[in-house]
Amino acid sequence: MRAVGILGTGKTLFGAFADQGIRSLAQTAVAAALADAAVTPAQVEAFYLGNFAGPSFTGQSHLAPYVAGACGLAGIPATRFEDACASSGVAFHHAWQAVAAGVYDLVVVCGVEKMTNQPTDRVGEILAMAGDVEQDRQTFPELFARIARAHMDRYGTTREQMATVAVKNHRHGFANPYAHLRKRITLEQALAGRVIADPLTLYDCSLVSDGAAAVVLAPEGRCRVLGIAQTSDAVALAGKPDLTRLPAVGRSAEKAYRMAGVAAADIQFAEVHDCFTIAEIIAMEELGFCPRGEGGAYAASEARPINRSGGLKSKGHPVGATGVAQIVDVVGQLRDGLGELGLAQNLGGTGATSVVTVLGRV
Amino acid sequence: MRAVGILGTGKTLFGAFADQGIRSLAQTAVAAALADAAVTPAQVEAFYLGNFAGPSFTGQSHLAPYVAGACGLAGIPATRFEDACASSGVAFHHAWQAVAAGVYDLVVVCGVEKMTNQPTDRVGEILAMAGDVEQDRQTFPELFARIARAHMDRYGTTREQMATVAVKNHRHGFANPYAHLRKRITLEQALAGRVIADPLTLYDCSLVSDGAAAVVLAPEGRCRVLGIAQTSDAVALAGKPDLTRLPAVGRSAEKAYRMAGVAAADIQFAEVHDCFTIAEIIAMEELGFCPRGEGGAYAASEARPINRSGGLKSKGHPVGATGVAQIVDVVGQLRDGLGELGLAQNLGGTGATSVVTVLGRV
Repeated sequence: MRAVGILGTGKTLFGAFADQGIRSLAQTAVAAALADAAVTPAQVEAFYLGNFAGPSFTGQSHLAPYVAGACGLAGIPATRFEDACASSGVAFHHAWQAVAAGVYDLVVVCGVEKMTNQPTDRVGEILAMAGDVEQDRQTFPELFARIARAHMDRYGTTREQMATVAVKNHRHGFANPYAHLRKRITLEQALAGRVIADPLTLYDCSLVSDGAAAVVLAPEGRCRVLGIAQTSDAVALAGKPDLTRLPAVGRSAEKAYRMAGVAAADIQFAEVHDCFTIAEIIAMEELGFCPRGEGGAYAASEARPINRSGGLKSKGHPVGATGVAQIVDVVGQLRDGLGELGLAQNLGGTGATSVVTVLGRV
Repeated sequence: MRAVGILGTGKTLFGAFADQGIRSLAQTAVAAALADAAVTPAQVEAFYLGNFAGPSFTGQSHLAPYVAGACGLAGIPATRFEDACASSGVAFHHAWQAVAAGVYDLVVVCGVEKMTNQPTDRVGEILAMAGDVEQDRQTFPELFARIARAHMDRYGTTREQMATVAVKNHRHGFANPYAHLRKRITLEQALAGRVIADPLTLYDCSLVSDGAAAVVLAPEGRCRVLGIAQTSDAVALAGKPDLTRLPAVGRSAEKAYRMAGVAAADIQFAEVHDCFTIAEIIAMEELGFCPRGEGGAYAASEARPINRSGGLKSKGHPVGATGVAQIVDVVGQLRDGLGELGLAQNLGGTGATSVVTVLGRV
């Protein structure tokens, strides 16, 4: 396998945009990535689209050629990848693989989701389809509330620690002009938030957003994929042996570190999948940033920069866009000289899909 | 790129099965393919799932790990591919690529769809999402009726020729114990069918079915992928320069022939995407089996065996299963000594995605 670089990146603002659809959002991100990479659409050999639930949110499927055509990429292989909230992390993984293996020399990966045109209840129903609908029969906040309670019971993780993650990510997002909710919050506000699914309050939950992100991959470039792995696990929480863990994340991190020839301690900063604050806390443990059970204290300590973009919590979470958006944000931090070795961690559902990517500047 | 073989195949009966869901259908097909390949789930390195509209038909998304877990394949990369009716052809293409490039030595590709639990009107709505919903605003029979009318007007293709394709595919399907509708029909019956979208009658349209198919791929085996290509085109019929053509099919066929080092004339038999009889007729032209405009006469002539499985018309068309089912049926015919060189042609929507695969016995 040869080295793969991120030649260009692009993204839209994340937010609620009544005048934007899947096609226009993706078009903006792809055009920006192509311009950043200084390549033309005619040079692109394959198009990888990550999208979670376009058919349910917008009534349109067959989205890969639908978007590719609008981006001037008609004709080439155009494929939609769906693995819940990890859809575009998975698309990125497959695209990386094809370039690394020498199949293609130039590909575009785009993640996109349009969510804010649906009423809140319907959004909740669509998101719940990423869990095991028959066995779990719960909303995503309810599922992650069970995970949070298990972690609190076993390890003494506190609501204050979760709220501190929210405060931190809102502080970071306030500084990100692309973020959906640019609003600083206090610990008191976070703790006093409306209960969504006990123990999770409004401030423990990520946002419902529209947005897109794109990257151009090639066997060159200064920002490189040093390690990457995709893993899977059971979709249902019912019957899971240990609710405090996200084992697919741990396994994908180990594999990505091995490929990169690095240890967890070498990672200088990360964009992690904080769909709920408890998910960021458990990610700290699964990524090996701290011992098991100490994720709450570790995340609150800000020992290393996590979600400098604002994370899903403040930057926003257009589900299918998130995986590629994390890559774009890690690359941005590498380019800005905010570190030499960063990581992106993209989670599907309650942990049934995980993609971990280690990125570095060479 | 190294040679890739189909080590094992499996499929379910196609039909309407009230007691079967996506998970159980896929499980049956995957178990059969693994048994046929004489490999265990623990040996499988990645899982590729083709599924068009599981979330819309069944209310469940995140289907790749959902199905993988049930097949004993939890842990490995599990990815869902969606490209409308070409979903599992596209999944197969990506899986082939990974094995050919040396990324994996053993992978499973499964295609599955559960459709018959929804009322007919809702099925029509879901299928229409594979077209450009905003620009075309038509059902799939209406879209293909426009294509049929254009072909009749330009080339003098007749309703008798389309009906003859239906009669042939029903005759073949009658002999296939896995087919959904095992019923011989006469030319008179086909011509007298209820009009669905003029000039298409009931007998010009493929079936709404439940079903799954699976293959095991490895860098070995007697049945080999000799050539394969995936291409794309505009999703909307509106604005298409020539309704009588499916240009993505022609381009993918050319590429697949070039890779295989064969000409159209060398292909001894084929499974083609007869979602409507006119689609089989145009496929004859795009695959280079006959000159442009002569597809109607060629298909009616039965000059070479096409859709010996019964095709989508009689075998059935569980949308996401179709691409892999075609591969399974071509491999079956190779194994049965019905030829040395066969082809599978899988179409997405009204031609926005195409995958053509040339398979041979070595």
